[in-house]
Amino acid sequence: MRLALAQINPTVGDFSKNSLLIKDFINKAIQQRADIVIFPELALCGYSPEDLLLRLDFLKETEKTLKEIVEFTTDKDIVVVLGYPKLGEYKNLYNTSGVIYQGKLLGEYYKHYLPNYGVFDEYRYFKPGNHKLVLTLKDQQKEIKIGFLICEDVWHPTLAREYSLLGIDLLVVINASPYEVGKFERKIEFVPARSTDGLYYTAYVNLVGGQDSLVFDGKSFVVSPKGEILGVAKAFEEDLLVIDIDTEETTRCRRRDQRIKEASLCETENFPTEIITLQKEINKELQREFIPWKKLQREEEIFKALVRGVKDYFHKQGFKKAILGLSGGIDSALTAVIATEALGRENVLALYMPTKFNSNESYEDAQRLAKNLGISFKVVEIEPFFERFEDLFSSMFENWNFDVADENIQARIRANVLFYFSNKLGYVVLATSNKSEAAVGYTTIYGDMAGGFAPLKDVYKTWVYQLARWYNQTKGWEIIPERILTKPPSAELRPNQKDQDSLPPYEVLDKILILLIEEGYSVEDIVRKGFEPSVVRKVVQMLRRAEYKRKQAPLGVKITPVSFDKDWRMPIVNRFEV
Amino acid sequence: MRLALAQINPTVGDFSKNSLLIKDFINKAIQQRADIVIFPELALCGYSPEDLLLRLDFLKETEKTLKEIVEFTTDKDIVVVLGYPKLGEYKNLYNTSGVIYQGKLLGEYYKHYLPNYGVFDEYRYFKPGNHKLVLTLKDQQKEIKIGFLICEDVWHPTLAREYSLLGIDLLVVINASPYEVGKFERKIEFVPARSTDGLYYTAYVNLVGGQDSLVFDGKSFVVSPKGEILGVAKAFEEDLLVIDIDTEETTRCRRRDQRIKEASLCETENFPTEIITLQKEINKELQREFIPWKKLQREEEIFKALVRGVKDYFHKQGFKKAILGLSGGIDSALTAVIATEALGRENVLALYMPTKFNSNESYEDAQRLAKNLGISFKVVEIEPFFERFEDLFSSMFENWNFDVADENIQARIRANVLFYFSNKLGYVVLATSNKSEAAVGYTTIYGDMAGGFAPLKDVYKTWVYQLARWYNQTKGWEIIPERILTKPPSAELRPNQKDQDSLPPYEVLDKILILLIEEGYSVEDIVRKGFEPSVVRKVVQMLRRAEYKRKQAPLGVKITPVSFDKDWRMPIVNRFEV
Repeated sequence: MRLALAQINPTVGDFSKNSLLIKDFINKAIQQRADIVIFPELALCGYSPEDLLLRLDFLKETEKTLKEIVEFTTDKDIVVVLGYPKLGEYKNLYNTSGVIYQGKLLGEYYKHYLPNYGVFDEYRYFKPGNHKLVLTLKDQQKEIKIGFLICEDVWHPTLAREYSLLGIDLLVVINASPYEVGKFERKIEFVPARSTDGLYYTAYVNLVGGQDSLVFDGKSFVVSPKGEILGVAKAFEEDLLVIDIDTEETTRCRRRDQRIKEASLCETENFPTEIITLQKEINKELQREFIPWKKLQREEEIFKALVRGVKDYFHKQGFKKAILGLSGGIDSALTAVIATEALGRENVLALYMPTKFNSNESYEDAQRLAKNLGISFKVVEIEPFFERFEDLFSSMFENWNFDVADENIQARIRANVLFYFSNKLGYVVLATSNKSEAAVGYTTIYGDMAGGFAPLKDVYKTWVYQLARWYNQTKGWEIIPERILTKPPSAELRPNQKDQDSLPPYEVLDKILILLIEEGYSVEDIVRKGFEPSVVRKVVQMLRRAEYKRKQAPLGVKITPVSFDKDWRMPIVNRFEV
Repeated sequence: MRLALAQINPTVGDFSKNSLLIKDFINKAIQQRADIVIFPELALCGYSPEDLLLRLDFLKETEKTLKEIVEFTTDKDIVVVLGYPKLGEYKNLYNTSGVIYQGKLLGEYYKHYLPNYGVFDEYRYFKPGNHKLVLTLKDQQKEIKIGFLICEDVWHPTLAREYSLLGIDLLVVINASPYEVGKFERKIEFVPARSTDGLYYTAYVNLVGGQDSLVFDGKSFVVSPKGEILGVAKAFEEDLLVIDIDTEETTRCRRRDQRIKEASLCETENFPTEIITLQKEINKELQREFIPWKKLQREEEIFKALVRGVKDYFHKQGFKKAILGLSGGIDSALTAVIATEALGRENVLALYMPTKFNSNESYEDAQRLAKNLGISFKVVEIEPFFERFEDLFSSMFENWNFDVADENIQARIRANVLFYFSNKLGYVVLATSNKSEAAVGYTTIYGDMAGGFAPLKDVYKTWVYQLARWYNQTKGWEIIPERILTKPPSAELRPNQKDQDSLPPYEVLDKILILLIEEGYSVEDIVRKGFEPSVVRKVVQMLRRAEYKRKQAPLGVKITPVSFDKDWRMPIVNRFEV
């Protein structure tokens, strides 16, 4: 039997585009003589439509497009599995996997386990389903049983086990599983375990592409009943992964394995099962040259995630060009690199906006980087504006002293200039601040935080360095000038300013932040790990006080388990002391 | 029996303050010889702690404080009902109503219906409870049965009905029910219906105060089995509402009413019931002079909500002073009024920041308003900055024309100035933009949108006028100069600019927006109501395109069913066309 995993990149709400994309992939799968083509979760409308799911007009359009696709399959000999939201009885909405064949919607599986943690709010939209769906494909010699699950369902052993007791040969899991560093490694541990335990093949089909702060990594894969990974689709790109499975193997496994028999004696099935039977010639070829795959290097994976996120944020909205401030520092350097890779050098404009506090080295570094990348580079002196502000303000306040207000005003003048260009030219402003800064509030609201999108929003400062080094290494030359990587980080908003005057060293800070944010450790726990209590306490306090800034930050690509977007919902008014 | 409804205003995470507040209200209730004192939902930790509920250190602190309060009751003859999050078996968290008496936690009810719509994410934090709790109070002559529910539970008839079949005399419902215009009217329709149908008294205890974008209106109330409202606590203020109930009446009602007997024949109870019995002298007095209450006028109610929201945002965080830009227009005028009422005239600083486009009338109006309110008023000419920007920019762009970029830069310079003052003086900047503007994007990001808090964020433009008129009327003189109310609205960012040049008249715009946002109507539905199709379509398009601005807006007080905070979760990347 030949499977085609259609790893597509739909756009939320763009029904005509998504419909064309789906039809195109159905045709491609037919050309490859696949028996079944499987699309990701909610592929029809894009994931996640969020509150669009509360709108009847949106759901009607979904229904209309689904009908169109069902009709499209009328004269085609391929089973189509497709994800969409389905308005069922009593106006309940279900996250659905539909099975379509020759112009008919044969059956539907409704997602049972609705994630409502992290970035997910599925109880806001969906009701959990309470039935299983088994499709039996029959030809003269063969009978293949297929079970269906959606994303979160397979993270729980319950339903997979129930399907196993029904003796399925193949479990089809459709997903919209957002990228996080390290998540794929967890998937290819537990999905093979599920397959081995249940003695069936698993086809795990994931979405690909960026949607707001989420990016889907694709990497759809097929696992054998022995737990072997038979193929992995491309990372962060559309792909059609075609894999032949030998269903004799499931039968052989089952024959050998007493566990199934024993288990069926203590039958645990809770949910009713809808059964569809279909007469259909099954492809008997067996291509044994499975696509070999290699694990991406951590930096490469993160970099691709960021590039895909930026690309889709722009292109799905119809934007082509980006503008950003290039300071000669590491954050704006890496942001420029990502923008260039995502949008093309001809679509990136970098402004260097110095005051008297900016060193000549900064200018050289910014200018050289822009040249290396081949992007447009302009200098806008903001010193005159800054002086004007300072003249006025120093006369308005008694006992005036240069302080954080005077630092911030520089960053805000830069944002004014960038947004002036943005308004004039229609370019999208990229913010350059990173996760470590956002965490402790070491960033200027309406200043360097300002932008339509913030590529590094979820990237810790030490990771920014790692990515920059990796990029230079991969390219084989110093595209990012070495000095940017080695000089001590500075906002250059006052004479001889260094980040480390106000913050713990980033190596320490990031470790504390990761424990606090990603792992949810308490101060006590972190101190027990050997960090200085006063430093930990200071970091926690800074983290809490910066909440109001983070609430007003632009979106950026989520790459960590707990980004500061939908998966961080802390109150601003919060007097919890630790 | 004497009930005391302790309508308190706790602060999220401020356990020591909340603990003192709770003890203080217990003492007050004892002084009034109440038999039972009832606190709101999650009163112990404040509502809503959001992701603090995912932190074990936060839950430990909750547990510690609960113990302290339980101990505090050791020598006191009053039943205490208190809301808090409880970490139960298997680390499941429950939204809990605890019954405390004389140093013992007698029993707990876990909220069953967890709201996960609108602003609510309770499935993110809690597991639903599956048991009922009945407390029987006994003295020589009397036996009173009390049932317990939490907030959303009472909006569903199921559990209330189950309690009724158990013959309760009193239903204690603890709530954290956020204010929305018109919501109280719905409560005092369906809660009395529930009471009449179930033949019991209901004590509905609500939280009061502001927390981020939510404000709780209090207005706790008691309903008799005949559906009479026996008293309503204060709106938007802390209060202890003491009400005597005559439990002979429930017995009389039950005797007369055959429905209960019939219903008990077809017993529908699904949940097990935990029963606590307590020997306790019950107060036999009957104060029949129930507190009369009157419905607040719509404008008064909204105004109080806004003032309470601003006050608590500031005071709970330890901020005293606000700064805002006063333009001579209606939005900043009403914002200044609210700030003055919330914080005191001595704590409000208004800046008038003109360019050449600002009329002399605007100056006069702004200045007069500030004088009427008695707030500080300063003029900061931003024309020199604006000119400098314009000089530079007009030389940088070929075929330069004055356009929206040049309008926005003025608003952004103003934000720069406000935030400079904010940084220097520690004042919180109040943004002045309203809901109509935010909806269609007729507002400058990092300009008039900028601020720590936006009092009018959820107030439609036509409502801004209504509130301003009502305020002048109530005060009996033109605190807000009449010209501000009558001149055509203008951003004054270019010569002779009027809002109505770019937007439909606000009367039309707001009607369309309310149908779109609050009612979830489709374009088709709205057109069917008689609006111009091209206008509706334009408004929808503007609404969608402004999503990225709204994602970066400061918090403001929610007063409508669908505010642009937690109850509006629309994707930015969204190609849904209608």
